[in-house]
Amino acid sequence: MQQTIETEIIYGKNAVTELLKSETGVDTVLLADTLDAKVAGYFTALAKNAGAVVKTTRTEKLNNLCGEGKHQGVAAFAAQITYYSLEELLQKAAEQNTGPPFILLADGVEDPHNLGALMRTAFLCGAHGVVIPKRGAAAVTPVVLKASAGAAARLPVARVANIGEAIRRLKQQNVFIYCADMDGPPAFKQNLTGAIGLVVGAEGKGVSPLVKKLCDGVVSLPMAVQQGSGVDSFNVSVAGGIVLYEIYRQRQEAAPENQPQNTAF
Amino acid sequence: MQQTIETEIIYGKNAVTELLKSETGVDTVLLADTLDAKVAGYFTALAKNAGAVVKTTRTEKLNNLCGEGKHQGVAAFAAQITYYSLEELLQKAAEQNTGPPFILLADGVEDPHNLGALMRTAFLCGAHGVVIPKRGAAAVTPVVLKASAGAAARLPVARVANIGEAIRRLKQQNVFIYCADMDGPPAFKQNLTGAIGLVVGAEGKGVSPLVKKLCDGVVSLPMAVQQGSGVDSFNVSVAGGIVLYEIYRQRQEAAPENQPQNTAF
Repeated sequence: MQQTIETEIIYGKNAVTELLKSETGVDTVLLADTLDAKVAGYFTALAKNAGAVVKTTRTEKLNNLCGEGKHQGVAAFAAQITYYSLEELLQKAAEQNTGPPFILLADGVEDPHNLGALMRTAFLCGAHGVVIPKRGAAAVTPVVLKASAGAAARLPVARVANIGEAIRRLKQQNVFIYCADMDGPPAFKQNLTGAIGLVVGAEGKGVSPLVKKLCDGVVSLPMAVQQGSGVDSFNVSVAGGIVLYEIYRQRQEAAPENQPQNTAF
Repeated sequence: MQQTIETEIIYGKNAVTELLKSETGVDTVLLADTLDAKVAGYFTALAKNAGAVVKTTRTEKLNNLCGEGKHQGVAAFAAQITYYSLEELLQKAAEQNTGPPFILLADGVEDPHNLGALMRTAFLCGAHGVVIPKRGAAAVTPVVLKASAGAAARLPVARVANIGEAIRRLKQQNVFIYCADMDGPPAFKQNLTGAIGLVVGAEGKGVSPLVKKLCDGVVSLPMAVQQGSGVDSFNVSVAGGIVLYEIYRQRQEAAPENQPQNTAF
């Protein structure tokens, strides 16, 4: 499979400072082991705040990566992602001409592998875009891009200050918002063919109660829980994948002309 | 969520040698940094052969883990898993009295996170067991147990020398074997309610041609591939999850009395 991963390396004190203060997804900050302790402390604090990992490395490695004398002992890996506004996301959906809007909202998914897997599945199910929050969740970092098999670079992403506010605005545009949660009718017994937003929640915790209240409906996944086994929930990328696929299947059956289609596994 | 992970630490030269030569899943071998180079080389080769990672560590760490003077500089983490024969798997399926046999066969899934996620989904979809090959694939290691949220310790596992031979024997027991692949009818357009085995293939490569030939049928997942995007396949744990869930859904609709059920997400 061809993978197009768009990652860039940013280096130099000012550039990395700007990067870490921006909303770009950063996985890793590299600091030379010769760096002044105060400067290293400054970047470590900034990186922590941006959710990035700090690695100390030999100066030669930075020379190889960035060119000698150019990095000032500081570099970072970032994803080359353009974030869109919610309105741009809806406009892009309309331009695609592949049926009513189909948006995934990830409410606090923290594991970049899960976010990447969800984006890969959303893309392959014909979703038009993904909404993620600015705080308390993974951004689109190089790890997310890789886990998405490149889909995260193809699928428009809106990074919003508040998922609740995004839901309100989508509802104003007549997008019906479903929350993936345990106390609703099964996904496969509901009509999911119209303009739709699917909200999936954080690992373990699920969708937050405040966000859930704003949703128009709930979709659940009945399952064969075996009492006392301690295993009582799907992985969020699998559960989200099952519902996303059910939405795709229903949309495809309702209006096959709207869906670019291929059969693969 | 409650997680029951059954991992044990094995130590001492003889015990770790036996462990690595057995078919138990081992993630990590710890070698003291004071170990003789020849002995370290011996265990590194054994570990590599068993698919385990080698980490060199300080002797004090081994003392803390195993007790001072007991480990001879060598320890390993293994999963406390009992493997069953194919016949035992089928017998356990019959004893559960939850419908005709429902078995997952993982043909060369190498990533322990994917194997764990598949086992978690299989368990929650009411599958009776999992068949994995002895060679060229992940065993049930502590990482697999953790990724399965403990399901790998609850779901009977048969580790077989040859997946093809396992398929032949399951077919003799009237289990209908489906292969998850691209050139078959969609999973949701087939009747999947009888005694069933689902074969999923390795990441990227899919089910091997030899194994595919032995299967009774093929199930595919049509999807909205966007030409030229380079993204053309689901993650194996998501794809497997979608088909496992479809099997569960059909079995539940056909004979709800057979399925212990709960609604969750």
